[in-house]
Amino acid sequence: MESDWIKKFSGTLGPLPARVLRGIGDDVACLVSPKTDNLLWTTDSQREGVHFCWDWLTPQEVGSRLLAVNLSDVYVKGGTPVSALVALGIPKNFPEERIFSFYEGLAEACRRFDCPVVGGDISRTTGGFDAVLSLLARSPAGRFPGRDCLLPGDTLYLLGRPGLSKAGYSALLSGLSAHQAMAESVSAFCRPRIYPWFSEIVREEAQVVATMDTSDGLGQAVFAMSDQSGVSVRLDPPENWLDHLQLPASLLGQEPFGMAWEGGEDYDILFAVRPDVGGGAIPRIQEQIRGEPEKLIRLGEVVARNAGDHTPTVTMTGENRRRVRLERTGFDHTR
Amino acid sequence: MESDWIKKFSGTLGPLPARVLRGIGDDVACLVSPKTDNLLWTTDSQREGVHFCWDWLTPQEVGSRLLAVNLSDVYVKGGTPVSALVALGIPKNFPEERIFSFYEGLAEACRRFDCPVVGGDISRTTGGFDAVLSLLARSPAGRFPGRDCLLPGDTLYLLGRPGLSKAGYSALLSGLSAHQAMAESVSAFCRPRIYPWFSEIVREEAQVVATMDTSDGLGQAVFAMSDQSGVSVRLDPPENWLDHLQLPASLLGQEPFGMAWEGGEDYDILFAVRPDVGGGAIPRIQEQIRGEPEKLIRLGEVVARNAGDHTPTVTMTGENRRRVRLERTGFDHTR
Repeated sequence: MESDWIKKFSGTLGPLPARVLRGIGDDVACLVSPKTDNLLWTTDSQREGVHFCWDWLTPQEVGSRLLAVNLSDVYVKGGTPVSALVALGIPKNFPEERIFSFYEGLAEACRRFDCPVVGGDISRTTGGFDAVLSLLARSPAGRFPGRDCLLPGDTLYLLGRPGLSKAGYSALLSGLSAHQAMAESVSAFCRPRIYPWFSEIVREEAQVVATMDTSDGLGQAVFAMSDQSGVSVRLDPPENWLDHLQLPASLLGQEPFGMAWEGGEDYDILFAVRPDVGGGAIPRIQEQIRGEPEKLIRLGEVVARNAGDHTPTVTMTGENRRRVRLERTGFDHTR
Repeated sequence: MESDWIKKFSGTLGPLPARVLRGIGDDVACLVSPKTDNLLWTTDSQREGVHFCWDWLTPQEVGSRLLAVNLSDVYVKGGTPVSALVALGIPKNFPEERIFSFYEGLAEACRRFDCPVVGGDISRTTGGFDAVLSLLARSPAGRFPGRDCLLPGDTLYLLGRPGLSKAGYSALLSGLSAHQAMAESVSAFCRPRIYPWFSEIVREEAQVVATMDTSDGLGQAVFAMSDQSGVSVRLDPPENWLDHLQLPASLLGQEPFGMAWEGGEDYDILFAVRPDVGGGAIPRIQEQIRGEPEKLIRLGEVVARNAGDHTPTVTMTGENRRRVRLERTGFDHTR
């Protein structure tokens, strides 16, 4: 499984030099430079047959999505995009016009987000089409809201619509994608919403202490943060937090909480606010999403671990107000 | 073909912002930062069934080679490695110990060249194993020996042993790889030699005006440089310049010049020295390779194009001292 491989690999690498503020284990790497901003650096891929099928996404959407999934990691950390490299794997006899349409979608997204492609690599592949993008960004020196920065007392929030992408994916799989009630779900999967303005809030509001996107699922994100921070978490989301899933879930015959907790590809933002640090992060976010379908959900709070616990306990208020313990789960692209 | 796709893609991107000194079309991208060194940035891949087979390379060698092919691009441009990201595509049911061995080889090479892996991505793939590495390096502000920097009168040199990797590849394909006379060739293919010290010479010797590695073949490199510089080239290599290929070529039933000109994966360095700029680049290189099997070959000189020519003319002294015109050719990983 991906996280085990990464842990083992990190072990073989040895200590990192001082120029690396953050290496493997967060959404982005963070490189420190003595006289300037920090550099944020991340890589993410889109692979035919793994992340998407050509029946589901247009080539332009694949190009746009490739940039979006990388930008998401950078924006949650307060970064401003600098540029991108793109490495392609092209199957034999692949239709050339599809490559150009992919490029068109990528180039259009690059212009929109002011992140030029400055180079890359093209190679043949023995599998389906694949594209790996590597993204470089700048962020203010001394500011990195790491996954490991939670403290007991912090409040956990989620920005987005958890599970909606999973609903779209399920609709595409089951042939329900043309149903009017599935349009927003399918769109969430095919054209994930990202939040450039969130980056500015991270840069300016020190009360936002820890951030990550939920591209591998909300459950995986909550466990990763609390794991790396050495804390536990008590979730008490408002009753209506999954209202957006009621109709898709009933049509799909799925259960809303499972879709939100285990579904991947959401690109929602999980973040923590520290109560004793002043600032206006929450009203600023509320202002930004006024009139938008996205929600700002107060998920719950960070609590200290019980003495001797080496892993986080994540609990949630369930039916009849009874507190239930949630299992570690999530979405794994290596499965 | 790769170069056509890249040209078409570059066209759709529009103009680059000022922070990008060099975008698509060179070995590396070059980003300018106001107060510090330039950033060099490149990406290159290793794909099972395209760049290598598991019968030919150990997983450790694949890891080491992945770093080497990226470092090669950085060293030719005068860069000092900063760090790397690595994105893997893992087939279903891929042996886990092979992943760890790959990581071992990569980590060992990273330590040797002081270039830590600081992050990455792991995904399933529908094809063979693939690994895409993205490498960041620093280089002095104001110094970039671009492919487009040739001027008439410059002298062209090659550092390495052209065609040897192609000989090794052919030996592996034809079952001759165990032959004692093929040992060096096979080694050149499996464990390409790169030149960290060349980077220092580029940084310090302004007379080295244009550089690139020959990973897609010597012919492709000569044409790319003269294409982008708007010049032509007269090659007059010394008679013994392909002596290292005599025995491998005769065993393989191939012709030395074709192996050197068309073979890829060499990672030799093609570079130009400007005669009216002082400096000691050539004696420094000769000193560095003293006692080593690599050669420093004076290939020929850069000449002005005939009026009205839109493409370079590349000629070479052939048999009986007659000058022959060479065709554009090379190695294309997308074929």
